[in-house]
Amino acid sequence: MDFLQGDERLDYLLAEDLRIIQSPTVFSFSLDAVLLARFVYVPIQKGSILDLCSGNGVIPLFLSARTKGTITGVEIQERLYDMAKRSIEFNTLQERIQMIHGDIKEMPKRLGHGKYDVVTCNPPYFPTPSAEERNENEHLAIARHEILCTLEDAIQVSSQLVKQGGKVAFVHRPSRFLDIVTLMRKYRLEPKKIQFVYPKQGKEANTLLIEATKDGNPDLKILPPLIVYNEENEYTPELKEILYGK
Amino acid sequence: MDFLQGDERLDYLLAEDLRIIQSPTVFSFSLDAVLLARFVYVPIQKGSILDLCSGNGVIPLFLSARTKGTITGVEIQERLYDMAKRSIEFNTLQERIQMIHGDIKEMPKRLGHGKYDVVTCNPPYFPTPSAEERNENEHLAIARHEILCTLEDAIQVSSQLVKQGGKVAFVHRPSRFLDIVTLMRKYRLEPKKIQFVYPKQGKEANTLLIEATKDGNPDLKILPPLIVYNEENEYTPELKEILYGK
Repeated sequence: MDFLQGDERLDYLLAEDLRIIQSPTVFSFSLDAVLLARFVYVPIQKGSILDLCSGNGVIPLFLSARTKGTITGVEIQERLYDMAKRSIEFNTLQERIQMIHGDIKEMPKRLGHGKYDVVTCNPPYFPTPSAEERNENEHLAIARHEILCTLEDAIQVSSQLVKQGGKVAFVHRPSRFLDIVTLMRKYRLEPKKIQFVYPKQGKEANTLLIEATKDGNPDLKILPPLIVYNEENEYTPELKEILYGK
Repeated sequence: MDFLQGDERLDYLLAEDLRIIQSPTVFSFSLDAVLLARFVYVPIQKGSILDLCSGNGVIPLFLSARTKGTITGVEIQERLYDMAKRSIEFNTLQERIQMIHGDIKEMPKRLGHGKYDVVTCNPPYFPTPSAEERNENEHLAIARHEILCTLEDAIQVSSQLVKQGGKVAFVHRPSRFLDIVTLMRKYRLEPKKIQFVYPKQGKEANTLLIEATKDGNPDLKILPPLIVYNEENEYTPELKEILYGK
């Protein structure tokens, strides 16, 4: 199949009967993206959903199984944007998922303010490293580090793009939790729903899922904890259902 | 025993082999106080610990089993202060636990700024109700509602009383979580350790334990979830150990 390039693979998104193009040296989606796509509220019958820092399009692809609305993904790296586009075409979802190649900071001007019912984002997790520490693989460095997009950029842009009363959902590391809630409130996004993900029973959380409402009233809920692995290092039943379906 | 008054009972603090005076119409300690007393860091061999909004002294009594340091409790209601004093004497802990009858807002002036290694607080959880909604039992109303002490008072006073680098630990409802972290940062208390308590597997959290360091560096950890009851509505093994000891 010559629509795969270099070391790209065509992987399954198991629970959704979809396929996705990945590459170990360019980008492979993480469990975090899957968890965000299942955590966020989405309107079922219609609506406009925007996914920022889309990578190879994993969140738009997952969300297409949860909503009949239209989904737009934004990715700054042309190589990843191109992988996402080819995956969307392979799944014949181009009527419902559109990819944009560009910088999220330009999207409010390009797409308009307050146009989306839901905005999702799995942003780079790590502060910009020094030149020596930087991942030599530029694709992975941009996806993982705040080189082209800081946390504040992502939250500010999300707030500009979402409708009043609409939802913004992020996945991130718990160590950035206080920064996230402080920045969300700064940009009129009121956190309403948080779920912590723990690698195993008895371990500290290593992932944070958070959903806010634009100009919402304060009323925060902490959802039940999500545990990824059991004592035998197998996925828990809850994780299996998320990954492989019922 | 005429040292018990009215409907007071002498209850066991089971895990610690201590006794405590309680009364259903005046004050009985809650699971939350027990969880805070076991959650907070304490120096083992020495140190000065302060407990604000002490009620019947449950937290100082529990902490006396975890540290050889000195513990001071502050309670504004004379009736509860008196119960706490009698419990301390019954357990012959008066050399190590001191109770103060007074308003926490006057303590920085009275006790001095930056004198304590650790400050704990299980404050009133609910906003001040209107006159009609108010609990007719004044003792319970003051203990549960922000009538004499707001959340901001408690956090500000804790910050004034704790040493630089010292710990401040609160227990509260998750719905006030964002207020707590915002107020803590306002008063130079950096949240470092959070634990959510869930009544049962699969339920939302109903209690929040949080510990901050005065002028600490940002580095937040989310501890493993604590589940109170199993499917049969019995305490989980972890809770039994906290309540009854190993």
